[in-house]
Amino acid sequence: MGRNETGSVGFIGLGTMGREMARNLIKAGHRVTVYDVLDEAVTVLAAEGAKPAASPAEAAADADIVITMLPDTPQVEDVVYGEDGLLAAPPRGRLIVDMSTISPVAVRRMHADLKATGTDFVDAPVSGGPIGAKTATLTIMAGGEAAAFARAEPFFRGMGTTITHVGAPGAGQAVKLCNQLICSINIQAVCEAIALGRACGVDLEQMRSVLLGGSAASWMLDKLGPAMIAGDAGAGFRIDLMLKDLRLVQEQAQALSVPLPGTALVTSQYIEARAHGEGGNGNQALFRVYDRMTNRA
Amino acid sequence: MGRNETGSVGFIGLGTMGREMARNLIKAGHRVTVYDVLDEAVTVLAAEGAKPAASPAEAAADADIVITMLPDTPQVEDVVYGEDGLLAAPPRGRLIVDMSTISPVAVRRMHADLKATGTDFVDAPVSGGPIGAKTATLTIMAGGEAAAFARAEPFFRGMGTTITHVGAPGAGQAVKLCNQLICSINIQAVCEAIALGRACGVDLEQMRSVLLGGSAASWMLDKLGPAMIAGDAGAGFRIDLMLKDLRLVQEQAQALSVPLPGTALVTSQYIEARAHGEGGNGNQALFRVYDRMTNRA
Repeated sequence: MGRNETGSVGFIGLGTMGREMARNLIKAGHRVTVYDVLDEAVTVLAAEGAKPAASPAEAAADADIVITMLPDTPQVEDVVYGEDGLLAAPPRGRLIVDMSTISPVAVRRMHADLKATGTDFVDAPVSGGPIGAKTATLTIMAGGEAAAFARAEPFFRGMGTTITHVGAPGAGQAVKLCNQLICSINIQAVCEAIALGRACGVDLEQMRSVLLGGSAASWMLDKLGPAMIAGDAGAGFRIDLMLKDLRLVQEQAQALSVPLPGTALVTSQYIEARAHGEGGNGNQALFRVYDRMTNRA
Repeated sequence: MGRNETGSVGFIGLGTMGREMARNLIKAGHRVTVYDVLDEAVTVLAAEGAKPAASPAEAAADADIVITMLPDTPQVEDVVYGEDGLLAAPPRGRLIVDMSTISPVAVRRMHADLKATGTDFVDAPVSGGPIGAKTATLTIMAGGEAAAFARAEPFFRGMGTTITHVGAPGAGQAVKLCNQLICSINIQAVCEAIALGRACGVDLEQMRSVLLGGSAASWMLDKLGPAMIAGDAGAGFRIDLMLKDLRLVQEQAQALSVPLPGTALVTSQYIEARAHGEGGNGNQALFRVYDRMTNRA
């Protein structure tokens, strides 16, 4: 498939992220067949021009590429290894791209198992969240063989803007996990500054503005700072999804003997937030851990 | 003094930062009298157009404003309360501005003591480091009364670009300490991502570039990331100076009953770096703590 040609996509996983990505592939002119464990998610996309499928195998049958966007490692493994799965029934184009955030160890195993049967596998997790998914501005970090990446790239262009081949199978997940650990620690940093600044009685919005101009600047201070200052623990990338990613970070770090004390600490704070019922709130709700610590909750 | 007028400055403390700030005040057209405990520092500036003084009182005598830029709280207290100090011998203009990073508690005490004798005190710590000092692009965070800030502002404009009155006496120090705690935690985040990414075998410079485009972006990833990736523990804002600032953060946090677990952890890592002889290295040398933890040192 050439740079501007369109193709046939099997898309599996139509949650908050996946349904927007599938929509953008349709908009980009690809023929998209969709599958999800929830029938109604399939029905919604079918009404928008997708072809419905009743199993991963059926979504794959006529596809140049199958793309999966699922909650966690077991769901991706199920789609690959399960009954009516992709290992037994690969897409016609022999290319599977998983865009979920899952275990790099599982990625390497699936890559090897699929390779042995003649199917390419690319791990291509994303950052940018639901808004990036909706506006087709995701950052896509892809690991896998160069030829497989090249075949997947025209499809990536329908979903994201910054698309990088970061290395061998599993490298996409590795970079994504590094992204997530930095995000969580940077959020903690903003929480601590706001907790201290508030106790000192300074104007927090003005402080944020001053700090954004210098060495303390971060995406998190910029984007999540206002909600933290306002005490708004509502929507956004959810605490429980970050906690899932932090679990993957720690599994990977343990497998490779890399101590990560900062990540360990912030993970325990995320667990505390979830224990207090904030799993469904956005990541800025980590500041509530500080509210409780300072007896302000 | 109006917005574009020049005045007479007593400048005390001619270290790495202070000497550049004094030079910029001379360039801005102010009449600058300088004092430092090291005679040779005074001699250097005298050769560049400053008037030498033999004591804080002498530097202050004919000045509209005295500016201090000193290593830590005791040195500033010494200049204010000591023999030939500013409490007994205030500047003619009755305005003292301390631009060091020191204890907010000490600031409020000096403000009160000087106020009682009719002298205004402004705390105006800076960020931007030696390069910001040299190029007159410092970020200046000032606490104090509005009228005192207004009198100091024309002098600030000779040294910095982002100048903000952040609140009451001590507020400048409070914002600066929040800046420093975010910086240290953001550095830790970059260290952990590099440690994990390296163990995963990804191209670290490419990873940094990808992460800078998304939610993990920070000034520290941008500016200190390259030196960490290169294993360069050389020049920059020194580990031991950050450790001094982190001590002030923890003193303030303890005084106000604000637990800061992330800051406590990163402080212990800075202590470890210093214990291994890295106090004189730049902050990026924190990655050496991770080198030792992963048996790469």
